[in-house]
Amino acid sequence: MENLKLALLGFGNAGQAFCRLLLDKQDEIRDTYRTDVSVTVIATASKGNIYDPAGVDLAAALADIEKNGKFSEKHKLIAMSTMELAENADYDVLVEMTPLNIFTGQPATDHIRAAFARKKHAITANKGPVAWFFRELSQAARDAGVCFFYETTVMDGTPVFNLTEHTLKMAKVTEVSGILNSTTNFILEGLALGIDYDDIMERGRKMGFIEADPAMDIEGFDAAAKITALLNVLMDAGITPDQVKRKGIEDITVKDIKDAASRGKVIKLLCKGVRNEDGSVEATVSPVEVSRDDILAGINSTTSIVSITTDLMKKISIIEHEPEIEQTAYGVFGDLLRVLDAVSVRP
Amino acid sequence: MENLKLALLGFGNAGQAFCRLLLDKQDEIRDTYRTDVSVTVIATASKGNIYDPAGVDLAAALADIEKNGKFSEKHKLIAMSTMELAENADYDVLVEMTPLNIFTGQPATDHIRAAFARKKHAITANKGPVAWFFRELSQAARDAGVCFFYETTVMDGTPVFNLTEHTLKMAKVTEVSGILNSTTNFILEGLALGIDYDDIMERGRKMGFIEADPAMDIEGFDAAAKITALLNVLMDAGITPDQVKRKGIEDITVKDIKDAASRGKVIKLLCKGVRNEDGSVEATVSPVEVSRDDILAGINSTTSIVSITTDLMKKISIIEHEPEIEQTAYGVFGDLLRVLDAVSVRP
Repeated sequence: MENLKLALLGFGNAGQAFCRLLLDKQDEIRDTYRTDVSVTVIATASKGNIYDPAGVDLAAALADIEKNGKFSEKHKLIAMSTMELAENADYDVLVEMTPLNIFTGQPATDHIRAAFARKKHAITANKGPVAWFFRELSQAARDAGVCFFYETTVMDGTPVFNLTEHTLKMAKVTEVSGILNSTTNFILEGLALGIDYDDIMERGRKMGFIEADPAMDIEGFDAAAKITALLNVLMDAGITPDQVKRKGIEDITVKDIKDAASRGKVIKLLCKGVRNEDGSVEATVSPVEVSRDDILAGINSTTSIVSITTDLMKKISIIEHEPEIEQTAYGVFGDLLRVLDAVSVRP
Repeated sequence: MENLKLALLGFGNAGQAFCRLLLDKQDEIRDTYRTDVSVTVIATASKGNIYDPAGVDLAAALADIEKNGKFSEKHKLIAMSTMELAENADYDVLVEMTPLNIFTGQPATDHIRAAFARKKHAITANKGPVAWFFRELSQAARDAGVCFFYETTVMDGTPVFNLTEHTLKMAKVTEVSGILNSTTNFILEGLALGIDYDDIMERGRKMGFIEADPAMDIEGFDAAAKITALLNVLMDAGITPDQVKRKGIEDITVKDIKDAASRGKVIKLLCKGVRNEDGSVEATVSPVEVSRDDILAGINSTTSIVSITTDLMKKISIIEHEPEIEQTAYGVFGDLLRVLDAVSVRP
């Protein structure tokens, strides 16, 4: 029986949900891949760091966090930093789930670079590295002969990157568009329904997806990072989020929304990328009016959509309906299964 | 250089579009798979049958049909029946595109049985075999160690089966639903817009997707076959189309549609399959009212949608936007690429 060792960088809600899923599925993984999966590193900013080459007791780690918000002394706690662990710990797959710095893609990118320098696989749920450094990182992974997977970075575990790679063979992507930011979508929907702005924000925070400071969402930075990630992977755009023509919903008023409604229209924050005649890819994020009969008008609450146009299959779309944290966890889990596909000899 | 030989059974619009795509992509296939693809058989009901083990001149065959509606004497014409060719001709992959008999799945199923009996791969664009005989045929393919692919049978080349197989690993499908029949969707939309029934039908026939006799669509038989195919593959339902609780749109009146509209609703012909507590799968096709704000309400014209609910990823949906015959061709082509993936040694 082989053993695949994971280093988890970041252990927030998604990381914890991923570990619960891993515990649930460990027998099925063993049966399918003849491989055990263990976690040797859990690195966090505020809960402590565990490093145990023999494998962390995940159930105990989860119980610790639930009870006390930090790891207890029964684990092998270590004073190394996250970066030191990425560079030195014993693991096969680095799982990058640290908090996103949307303006730099760091320190997540350095963690992944460290993994590739050691010929370790990397899975990232953090979109920063894919938005800022995709070409460099994917080349580094190829050079190292290791896997680099990032399905979770856009629409959780919904297959967007895998869809195109595995099911649209030989088709060339000519355009990508979508509604990708839940916070703005939720706000626009709420305002259209006549709900007070503060009530909308309160509700979104209770549901867990609106940040304490939602500026990154409202001003379109999150959407810009997501469309950049999509375009870098699906169209080899080689762009960074600061190159996106970005306009958020900060200037949209209730009057704008009502005026649009009076014309049978709905305002949505649309992300879009198209290839210019010179081969470059142009990306925009901006509020647009869509017909109330358009499919986009039905994308409400935390639901999101990506439409992919190819030369051979024209336009197809994929929708994720009101995801929870478990769908983020599944994205990382699905990438882990792809690593297992790559490294294991199935029975 | 290897050579993969195809037997095309049926050469209607989709078969011809597939051949055009094959001609376009032959160099790319050769570069990618180090394999040539040739067509040794084209069997038709009314255009003649060609059998040429050295490879049919596809460009000439296409030109013949375009000019005269049948194959000319410059091809190696043969008096064998389609079934005799399936049983005796020299080919590696049988491509089943004969006209569908929705009540029996024949003769398409016998063609595929013949291929598997000879350990040949089969691709079907014909949904009959998947709706009526999926378990038998997929077992026969496994026993013969050959490929059996059928992506085109629902939503053309839109990845529905491949999506689930390749991108939703370890997730168990618990429910499938969708709007799968263009004719009824187009009729319901037209009636809601106040267009006269005869005008709708005229327009749909001109666009090429409404049949001379649309009863199979209107009474829900086509939708029933499609949801059966989906459920047999995605949920191992083991059902046949006659087991679907089927109600078409034949009894829907303009008044029904107007009444629904007055309540903010739209009528759609919805296909659905759920697993019962005893493990069996229950399938229905019936007109339902959906809210005008629902995503389903935005599925208009020839656009279609499938929603797949799994234990791990909850509900995701995939939409095919107003396909043409080229998207059907791509479905068969994508399946061919999967056969090439399976048989070829890539460089």
